[in-house]
Amino acid sequence: MGVGPGDPELLTLKAARVLSQVDAVVCPSSAKGKSSFALEIARIHIGKDAQIIEMTFPMEYEEGLMESCWRECASGIDKLLEQGMDVAFITLGDPMLYSTYINMMGYLGEPGAAEIIPGVNSFSLAAARTRVPLAMGEQTLSIVPLGKNENRIECALESADNIVIMKPSALSGQLAREFSSRGLEGSFVLASMCGTQSEEISRDIERLSAKRVPYLSTIIVKKGGIK
Amino acid sequence: MGVGPGDPELLTLKAARVLSQVDAVVCPSSAKGKSSFALEIARIHIGKDAQIIEMTFPMEYEEGLMESCWRECASGIDKLLEQGMDVAFITLGDPMLYSTYINMMGYLGEPGAAEIIPGVNSFSLAAARTRVPLAMGEQTLSIVPLGKNENRIECALESADNIVIMKPSALSGQLAREFSSRGLEGSFVLASMCGTQSEEISRDIERLSAKRVPYLSTIIVKKGGIK
Repeated sequence: MGVGPGDPELLTLKAARVLSQVDAVVCPSSAKGKSSFALEIARIHIGKDAQIIEMTFPMEYEEGLMESCWRECASGIDKLLEQGMDVAFITLGDPMLYSTYINMMGYLGEPGAAEIIPGVNSFSLAAARTRVPLAMGEQTLSIVPLGKNENRIECALESADNIVIMKPSALSGQLAREFSSRGLEGSFVLASMCGTQSEEISRDIERLSAKRVPYLSTIIVKKGGIK
Repeated sequence: MGVGPGDPELLTLKAARVLSQVDAVVCPSSAKGKSSFALEIARIHIGKDAQIIEMTFPMEYEEGLMESCWRECASGIDKLLEQGMDVAFITLGDPMLYSTYINMMGYLGEPGAAEIIPGVNSFSLAAARTRVPLAMGEQTLSIVPLGKNENRIECALESADNIVIMKPSALSGQLAREFSSRGLEGSFVLASMCGTQSEEISRDIERLSAKRVPYLSTIIVKKGGIK
């Protein structure tokens, strides 16, 4: 299930109900001992007798290592299910868009037996907080996870009328330069940590290029400009 | 606020709380006397003393007519606010993606005074119900409202690794032919009326080309194929 983008009130009624009913909640964290943001959001909704199980998925692009993590996690969940427990797997945002769940579900004994509960995407909250619409009328919207691949920048900026850039932190300086060279320096908004106390919103190209951009950030680019 | 894609349990906790507290709920409908789907979804959450106000937005692409509708609706809402009422404007899915609210908000007296509450998008529910992920890892996702413009089909299918086609009903036959000619006949899923009793899911290219596709339909195309 998706727990939404950061505010515990942006869970769906269904996600909150299920969290209050299950026997165990499995949540992904990026490193042992590091707290899971999905769990922080979900915590107040989880029943008091439920078991909370953190599973670690290192954020590395070594395929063999990741695969063995997914397999191990799936087998752990299968064991809980065999014991007759109801289990919820929580993910940030929506489970069908860039979540650990997608990678893991193929390794479950009966992936088709699980119900998937959709959630609010981080870019929907970013748009709401910045008051910058994602797309209207016949416009297209493209969602691009940037990561560390510089070659994706140009392609991303040509792909649609409006562009959501996810994971911009590693290449924010290069992005700022590309915006400037395309005359887009007034056509973007950066939204970080939306729905949390560390929320930060900026339309300043200097901010994008000069300071470190937090990992949980979204950039909305509107080629038609921002009103 | 967004009321999500169709299931009254897929509202956010925040949307449900606000609906139970406001004095008036404004909902868009496409024709006078025609029921508003957003209102059907929201109805059980609305406080019993709240005023329900339907405003008509004809689904026509005559710009002058649409503009006067948005202006009239905004001025109606401004009047309620001047009377000291708390007002919620409801939209299907997420208010910042293809909603009537985006068009209307520019005409409000104080658009910045309104809080925007994000919602679950129809394509997130379509992905959950069909178990077809929208995008994973470094893949890109493109959202394209098809409408009646045949020229958009080719462009849409070349735009990303994964494509969500919204409003496919008018051109579903042409889409089916384009899928076949590109070898994509096994790489799409059609989801209609998700979260309602009329839900229909199909991966059959014949279904897409032969029978009328409902207006509230989403097609997910995965160039890498569907597992």
